[in-house]
Amino acid sequence: MDELINHLKSQGFIFQGSEIYGGLANSWDYGPLGVELKNKLKKAWWDHFVRNNPLNVGLDSSIILNPKVWQASGHIDGFNDPLIDCKNCHSRWRADKLIEEFDSSINSGIMNEKDIKDFIYKNQIKCPKCGSCDYTEIRKFALMFKTNQGVLEDSASSVYLRPETAQGIFINFKNIQRSLRKKLPFGVGQIGKSFRNEITPGNFIFRTREFEQMELEFFFNENDENDWYKYWVNEVDWFLQNVIKIKKENYRIREHEQDELAHYSKATSDIEFKFPFGWGELWGIAHRGNFDLTVHKELSKEDLTYLNPIDNTKIIPSVIEPSVGVERLILALLCQAYEEEKIDESNSRIVMKLPNNIVPYQIAIMPLQKQQSEEANKLFKDLIVDFDATYDETGNIGKRYRRQDAIGTPLVITCDFDSQEDNSVTVRFRDSMNQERVSKDKLKDFLKFNLA
Amino acid sequence: MDELINHLKSQGFIFQGSEIYGGLANSWDYGPLGVELKNKLKKAWWDHFVRNNPLNVGLDSSIILNPKVWQASGHIDGFNDPLIDCKNCHSRWRADKLIEEFDSSINSGIMNEKDIKDFIYKNQIKCPKCGSCDYTEIRKFALMFKTNQGVLEDSASSVYLRPETAQGIFINFKNIQRSLRKKLPFGVGQIGKSFRNEITPGNFIFRTREFEQMELEFFFNENDENDWYKYWVNEVDWFLQNVIKIKKENYRIREHEQDELAHYSKATSDIEFKFPFGWGELWGIAHRGNFDLTVHKELSKEDLTYLNPIDNTKIIPSVIEPSVGVERLILALLCQAYEEEKIDESNSRIVMKLPNNIVPYQIAIMPLQKQQSEEANKLFKDLIVDFDATYDETGNIGKRYRRQDAIGTPLVITCDFDSQEDNSVTVRFRDSMNQERVSKDKLKDFLKFNLA
Repeated sequence: MDELINHLKSQGFIFQGSEIYGGLANSWDYGPLGVELKNKLKKAWWDHFVRNNPLNVGLDSSIILNPKVWQASGHIDGFNDPLIDCKNCHSRWRADKLIEEFDSSINSGIMNEKDIKDFIYKNQIKCPKCGSCDYTEIRKFALMFKTNQGVLEDSASSVYLRPETAQGIFINFKNIQRSLRKKLPFGVGQIGKSFRNEITPGNFIFRTREFEQMELEFFFNENDENDWYKYWVNEVDWFLQNVIKIKKENYRIREHEQDELAHYSKATSDIEFKFPFGWGELWGIAHRGNFDLTVHKELSKEDLTYLNPIDNTKIIPSVIEPSVGVERLILALLCQAYEEEKIDESNSRIVMKLPNNIVPYQIAIMPLQKQQSEEANKLFKDLIVDFDATYDETGNIGKRYRRQDAIGTPLVITCDFDSQEDNSVTVRFRDSMNQERVSKDKLKDFLKFNLA
Repeated sequence: MDELINHLKSQGFIFQGSEIYGGLANSWDYGPLGVELKNKLKKAWWDHFVRNNPLNVGLDSSIILNPKVWQASGHIDGFNDPLIDCKNCHSRWRADKLIEEFDSSINSGIMNEKDIKDFIYKNQIKCPKCGSCDYTEIRKFALMFKTNQGVLEDSASSVYLRPETAQGIFINFKNIQRSLRKKLPFGVGQIGKSFRNEITPGNFIFRTREFEQMELEFFFNENDENDWYKYWVNEVDWFLQNVIKIKKENYRIREHEQDELAHYSKATSDIEFKFPFGWGELWGIAHRGNFDLTVHKELSKEDLTYLNPIDNTKIIPSVIEPSVGVERLILALLCQAYEEEKIDESNSRIVMKLPNNIVPYQIAIMPLQKQQSEEANKLFKDLIVDFDATYDETGNIGKRYRRQDAIGTPLVITCDFDSQEDNSVTVRFRDSMNQERVSKDKLKDFLKFNLA
């Protein structure tokens, strides 16, 4: 993992956030290559789940919402971590995590504070730092970032940074349904930043306090005979395998047991990816019943029902929520793509085998030597209109090939001594390292074919 | 303006934020059509200023940065508004705005608190609410949103939501330059959310507390004989006219006077747009000298210099900053596009004349009557792969044309009684309202040609 992190930094994918000031608690910035990869991943999700799905539409709601949204959703009262301090060494721990590390088969997420404390003392779970077993009471630590809006710093002006994008969709359900005259079933997708004041962020970009979500809320009539839950689990599975090419052996779908489910949820599946640090949650698909629209209807007193045109009854739609973090998906893609490959007895290369639709640059253009600079530059400016392209003329050709391997560029185009005479260039393939001579007249079609 | 706001709500472009809870202080959510328009505008900017410019690269840095960033940049000490309270009616005002409304030729931005107060009393500027002229002292009101990160709520854990994306670029200057082996001149572009706790947000989406910026920081050697400032003013001008088709008569370029400039700035131009409420700033292009990198170098003690390969001297690059707010650009586009057009004596239509590259849907597909539903649906699913498409079969054809006019769809394709026989469809143009019969075999090329 450290090797990957160093590689990503040195190649301009991901930098430590605020690095020149010593960083800031596991925050990360996306460099020139990272942002291109991120944008392409977001576009792939948007195209698949929003733009090209005739049932779905998109939304971009605010990060700061009226605090009543979080009152209705239960986040103000219920979205917190149980913290415990060691009385001996004063280090602070998440009590539920102490239990999970003690016995990973225990689901501490459903235990109340008393149960957690009892379990810790009964099993004499020791402080990981000093080894004693003498703790303070458990305190609830709110996970929402709080700030003040307006000119007064009192509780009336308290607002929160959203801990999920989903609620922005629920509160806009009626506006969207009405303005687009949508009929059930339909979905609303959204991409955007969320914030959680996690006590223990970590594992690189796997868990950060500031992160980006891609969430779909799919509304349907509970009496609809289609199994929409199964449908969306399959869609996510299909997207992972066929759109962004996550290998089947690197992930698994885990259906939650009955006792793991939130009280309102009828079913939930987690897609877990095999990260270097173990299996980690990548994507959650939850059947949330009609919980969300019901609580907002009750608190806002607004009519959030849907008039079923078939029998003229008013219903509160149910919802399936496939929800994924952008950074986790990026980490999965990078972990799968990163390879140190032996070429022969004494040579190896680092190659990022990213899929063609997610890679920062599709092609690199280079002159074999300085003499071909002008020609290569001209070609670069011609190709950049149709392809994501980069230009490189520093160092020898072997070094430059390695550099493009290291950032995942699938095709490298070289102008050489013969190019002007035969009006052709050499195209080199990242994975096979094979080279092919291609006429400039047919170059664009050749590239398009090989990048499809 | 109210008419436009109502139109945008009813058509699914922009909704009041948190509307079901009575809203939240001038916050706005982008509905299904608004988010597509926003995404296209951002893509147009990114393509022009980052992707297709061989000198520039992109970045996506965090919203929450190490607080030292804001100490260096001067935002902690200097980024605030002068507030004043009326002693009689207790209403609160921005003292600088009272002066500007009294006399728009006065630049209150460069006055200190004493000057502001003196000016108000000398000119007997009255409280706009009660008419008296008896005020409290001026207090500085910080514009950065403050929150706490981590488990302690003390000043050591205070962090801020960024009030601009630019500083994320400056602190990553060295990481980007080094990892991509960039030579001066080069630029770094970024799109992302910023937050300012404005006292008086308003004019719809013109000024909101949460907003999105598109900023480019272009680094260059001060000795470079190119006039990069002029170059970027021209690029912005070109982008407005030729990429997103803002009409020349709707905007003006205003060069700042010497006494308006920040102390470090060598030159600044504002692009101002003629909004319904008057001329308003759209885009700022500032020559910031080497102020930003210098202050970060001093506070961080990191080497933020650039080794000039020509003469091996270390320099701190200068920077030109073209900076624009996404929402303001959207508002400009919408204001320009919205037209109530008289068709004949008794008929009129609302039409959004948005440019083809920014419009939510490029095409709409519809059956003339229910009989052609299947055929039209099949065509829709075929075209949605290559075009941004919507499908509509509710209401009569005239109503549906009006509906597409109202959301700006440039081309409407109708399957009618003859379509199956002659393998053709009717294409109707938004602006001219002309119709043309097109063979299905040639349809895609016809659409591409007319949308280019």
